[in-house]
Amino acid sequence: MARTNKKKNAAPKLYADRLAAARERMASKKLAGYLVTNHMDYHYLTGFTGEDSALLLTPRRAYVISDTRFEEALRQECPWVPTVMRKALIEDAIGALCGRLKLDRVGIQADHMTLSSHQTLRKAAKPTKLVSAPPIVNGQRLCKDNSELKILDQAIKIAQDAFKAMCRSIRVGQTEQQLAARLEYEMQKRGATGPAFPTIVAEGPNAALPHAHPGARKVKKGSAILFDWGATYRFYRSDLTRMVFVGTIPPKIRKIYGVVLEAQQKAIAAIRPGVRGFDVDGVARKHIKKAGYGKYFGHGTGHGLGLDVHEAPAVSFRSQKEKLEPGMVVTVEPGIYLPGIGGVRIEDDVLVTADGHRVLSSLSTEMSDAVLK
Amino acid sequence: MARTNKKKNAAPKLYADRLAAARERMASKKLAGYLVTNHMDYHYLTGFTGEDSALLLTPRRAYVISDTRFEEALRQECPWVPTVMRKALIEDAIGALCGRLKLDRVGIQADHMTLSSHQTLRKAAKPTKLVSAPPIVNGQRLCKDNSELKILDQAIKIAQDAFKAMCRSIRVGQTEQQLAARLEYEMQKRGATGPAFPTIVAEGPNAALPHAHPGARKVKKGSAILFDWGATYRFYRSDLTRMVFVGTIPPKIRKIYGVVLEAQQKAIAAIRPGVRGFDVDGVARKHIKKAGYGKYFGHGTGHGLGLDVHEAPAVSFRSQKEKLEPGMVVTVEPGIYLPGIGGVRIEDDVLVTADGHRVLSSLSTEMSDAVLK
Repeated sequence: MARTNKKKNAAPKLYADRLAAARERMASKKLAGYLVTNHMDYHYLTGFTGEDSALLLTPRRAYVISDTRFEEALRQECPWVPTVMRKALIEDAIGALCGRLKLDRVGIQADHMTLSSHQTLRKAAKPTKLVSAPPIVNGQRLCKDNSELKILDQAIKIAQDAFKAMCRSIRVGQTEQQLAARLEYEMQKRGATGPAFPTIVAEGPNAALPHAHPGARKVKKGSAILFDWGATYRFYRSDLTRMVFVGTIPPKIRKIYGVVLEAQQKAIAAIRPGVRGFDVDGVARKHIKKAGYGKYFGHGTGHGLGLDVHEAPAVSFRSQKEKLEPGMVVTVEPGIYLPGIGGVRIEDDVLVTADGHRVLSSLSTEMSDAVLK
Repeated sequence: MARTNKKKNAAPKLYADRLAAARERMASKKLAGYLVTNHMDYHYLTGFTGEDSALLLTPRRAYVISDTRFEEALRQECPWVPTVMRKALIEDAIGALCGRLKLDRVGIQADHMTLSSHQTLRKAAKPTKLVSAPPIVNGQRLCKDNSELKILDQAIKIAQDAFKAMCRSIRVGQTEQQLAARLEYEMQKRGATGPAFPTIVAEGPNAALPHAHPGARKVKKGSAILFDWGATYRFYRSDLTRMVFVGTIPPKIRKIYGVVLEAQQKAIAAIRPGVRGFDVDGVARKHIKKAGYGKYFGHGTGHGLGLDVHEAPAVSFRSQKEKLEPGMVVTVEPGIYLPGIGGVRIEDDVLVTADGHRVLSSLSTEMSDAVLK
């Protein structure tokens, strides 16, 4: 049988507020409970870092269902949360808890539950009814509070400092893969738990593929190299893109660099509350189109950033509805990709503020600063 | 509308054989099609490395459903596979394909499909019926062929060489986190695409937690440090554990090191076809129990290793049924954990051969070799 620890301590204000907001949304959906299986969501609501766990939110409590591997983490990170330590399947422990609490209707996160887990849980939770719930925590995570912005700032600083250190070590003959390894190492040395996503290092024509994997291509005299990287720090993720030129800048790349940089700066300048992601994207897209490169810019201009490297809001030609609000953090990363030749993308992380925006990242985008001597 | 490319080339023998074996299992389950959404499974069947894709197996063909990000990878890795390049949701593209092929009953991988994806796909695939299929590819992946063993050997070599390089760089004052970063860097420099799992570096009492995260604890004179790490190389994963002692070995740790090493060597010696994981586990467990540490060895003795870091067969007190067969690769990793004091685990990767076993890893387990001067 699973063991339950009841805790009497109150939650710290940060988490009490987040849980209260989630409960309010839960009540408005007429749910007696809400089962959070997305790790980033239950981390957001409690501070708990352990994987393979879940949070069951009820009108008055929040239970973490976990196992002995995370006993110590639970004690340190959220001693105020009542815990259920499972001995066997997590679905059985959750089902038993639903039964004990006599919950009639529990919302689940259909994007964060496998079909087989759902099949098992449905039986284990009877007579509790499980229903696919509309997003509840997602909405809360859109606007970052000060505690989140502090962590994001640090995630960006780590990525930037690591990039500078990696740049000092670039030598002709190194492979993309070696540069990616070095960049990730420099981030981890500075406290990152890992890269925010698989680091992209793309030399020459490889940079024409927006999702290139770092491979065996080597740094040459005259190389134009695209780096797209970020750090994960306390679960928050930074996301940056810069170009590095070895000795000289190829003329075609020089030309599109100027266009991309102007497009990026114009798009950033357009960021303020009330504007749609669609509008910001449109500014960058229009500039690139006018310069004659419209068909070489296929992807969206940016995306929200936080506990996930891609989260709402999108800054894209598809995001016609949602408006930017203070506290949102988005990337701005237009690019131009010339098949067989190369590509340029420049990316910064930008906070929407009450009266406009603040660029959180600070690595130079001057073309001359990107040239390694 | 999704675009379909029909390919006429034949599959290379390796993949043709794997697909034929999967088809045989599929037919025995009376399925008209089998949808493979587990990335490692469709990689195993086709060699395709792209994520966010799927494979639809039919009695005569195999289709990859993917998107333009992976067009180049598909061309290079499996030009013989007909592809469906989706423009919108992958579920819609799969559903349309099922309809076009008039498949009445398609098996799905319930462990590798989210509930929301299933809800979308069920509608998109109508009138095709989707059924949770019993494992098909899992069974095939149990026994490794020569091409897989070559890659696994390299994944082990990378992990070992990186460990030796990292050991040379250990200095008093470094944190667990810095050592983990260095070890991962040394693996990536040697061709790993990343660690096989989050690297464990646990100093002193932290080593008493079998799943410790590397943190701010520092290397001291007299430190006993547990490293549990592996490399991902061409998607295959190695998994090793070694202890490192800084200058001297704490007496209590010296004692349990001897017990763990003997337990590990006895367990390895017991590996041969026809023996159960349960039996191998029993050998290690009995030895540790006899030495008086039975209650300090809570986890299983090992697990299968391949495209996943934990795969069948288990080498555990729970695996009473399955017997070891030639071609299986398992870890052997008993441990003793003394709360508040420290822990010892020693882990090697072992291939089951026709007449016994072969230890694939070759790092010294001599206690004296683990002492850094």
